[in-house]
Amino acid sequence: MLIYIYIIAITAEAMSGALAAGRRNMDLFGVALIAFLTALGGGTVRDMLLGNYPVTWTQHPPYIYLTISAGLATMLVARFMQKLHRFFLILDAMGLIAFTIIGCNVALRLDYQTPVVIMAGMTTGIFGGILRDIMCNRTPQVLRHELYASVSMVVAILYLVLMRLGVSDDINTLVSFCLGLALRLSAIYWKWSLPTFSYSPNRWED
Amino acid sequence: MLIYIYIIAITAEAMSGALAAGRRNMDLFGVALIAFLTALGGGTVRDMLLGNYPVTWTQHPPYIYLTISAGLATMLVARFMQKLHRFFLILDAMGLIAFTIIGCNVALRLDYQTPVVIMAGMTTGIFGGILRDIMCNRTPQVLRHELYASVSMVVAILYLVLMRLGVSDDINTLVSFCLGLALRLSAIYWKWSLPTFSYSPNRWED
Amino acid sequence: MLIYIYIIAITAEAMSGALAAGRRNMDLFGVALIAFLTALGGGTVRDMLLGNYPVTWTQHPPYIYLTISAGLATMLVARFMQKLHRFFLILDAMGLIAFTIIGCNVALRLDYQTPVVIMAGMTTGIFGGILRDIMCNRTPQVLRHELYASVSMVVAILYLVLMRLGVSDDINTLVSFCLGLALRLSAIYWKWSLPTFSYSPNRWED
Repeated sequence: MLIYIYIIAITAEAMSGALAAGRRNMDLFGVALIAFLTALGGGTVRDMLLGNYPVTWTQHPPYIYLTISAGLATMLVARFMQKLHRFFLILDAMGLIAFTIIGCNVALRLDYQTPVVIMAGMTTGIFGGILRDIMCNRTPQVLRHELYASVSMVVAILYLVLMRLGVSDDINTLVSFCLGLALRLSAIYWKWSLPTFSYSPNRWED
Repeated sequence: MLIYIYIIAITAEAMSGALAAGRRNMDLFGVALIAFLTALGGGTVRDMLLGNYPVTWTQHPPYIYLTISAGLATMLVARFMQKLHRFFLILDAMGLIAFTIIGCNVALRLDYQTPVVIMAGMTTGIFGGILRDIMCNRTPQVLRHELYASVSMVVAILYLVLMRLGVSDDINTLVSFCLGLALRLSAIYWKWSLPTFSYSPNRWED
Repeated sequence: MLIYIYIIAITAEAMSGALAAGRRNMDLFGVALIAFLTALGGGTVRDMLLGNYPVTWTQHPPYIYLTISAGLATMLVARFMQKLHRFFLILDAMGLIAFTIIGCNVALRLDYQTPVVIMAGMTTGIFGGILRDIMCNRTPQVLRHELYASVSMVVAILYLVLMRLGVSDDINTLVSFCLGLALRLSAIYWKWSLPTFSYSPNRWED
């Protein structure tokens, strides 16, 4: 199941990357690169961080074609996408959670300790969006918006707890996925957010 | 031949990095770091992505000295460089193509699949400039200007096609290099560019 | 000794990261991530660059908890921190130097050549701050301010010279640390800085 959601998710992430590139008036190539990085960048950073070589997408060229095609196709359909805004938020939420569970599994396979497993899940979930924002020269949105990274963390912890409790992997994935999705969609709907920290120094200069 | 072009290319790239640092009023050290990253950053990202350890420049200290010296020397000669603008565009084009061919060869040696080989070539060609722009806090230029990354892609594909056709490596390198250079210089001269994608949403907020 | 200074240093760096996040109005999670990256990002980049897997902090979860806690605690005490500005500059200077010496040792253990050892030390010392600034969408401060990266370079070179002269590691660490700290604090006190390079082109466009 996770693999289908993953494919939907990288498509949705690629389209979100393409739109961000469009806001910076990038050319065809820029759109393709940002789409690719948004969709597959999180897993790439995770693999490089964990020393998990070869990096996953280098062994699966179809993912490369899919994300680049989705990015370029977005240029044609962008005008209709605002109407589909809510639909995309749901795809994006599914992607966040699928990425998180996949990332945890990669770190588990490499025998990393629990906090690293959680961070590997979160890295997979959110770093694509962070790379997209760095490439587009804006402050990463995932660090400022309503519950997003936190959902990734909750899903990773839940998944590990259920695993320790001996829940079978299929049921664990299903439960973690559904609860995570419910949490993320609730956060969007009721605009839940974490407290923010605002600091305006007079002279701190480091 | 490629090695001489490579040395000219990293020098030219280091100088372009130094000028970008100068526009941000960086100090001596900032100039040296940006020069180094612009010249050798593309290959570094490629090596880290492919798991090609040790990273190339760590085994060739002269490249480190050369790029840092070129960056610092640029501070002295910057005032004369505007007159040499066209000359530098040619060096930069030569660098782009030499980097691309070298990057393809690294990935081929590690037995990566064709699309990854093309991406390794392009990463080597363009990521130095992307790192330079990220460090200088501006939107990467290579994603917005006239044919640049596309030239890198065309060269990588041409090089691989000729290789499959059994063309000897020397002739292949020469042909790919000359056609790539002609394409890039034509793009500059006639201002060829890819279509750009402009997107100004009202409410898309992800 | 170095390990205690290291622990103080990552705490101080995490707090500096949290303050930078606060200036961008980030949420709890953003603060935690930037704190973590500022404190441990330099060592992470070094390990990824040198192929030193597994990355150090993945084997030491307490460092993860410490930096994230320090970042979050900063949100509570930020209002008092401006008064402690000078105290923090001293902690930050200690961190810069401890990071540098630790980074050199990692590269030495992996048998890298001297210039790479120096660069590994500097990467550990300054890249946390660079990542913090990239994530907060500002031009890296370490490339523009008074002697900072240069202190890291001087410490790395001094440490290697004393090592070649056969000085025992304990004494070497102590001497390098004290001289480095004196240099950095002098640079802050007397506002020593490197010459900067300002370049305002009319038409250079690469």
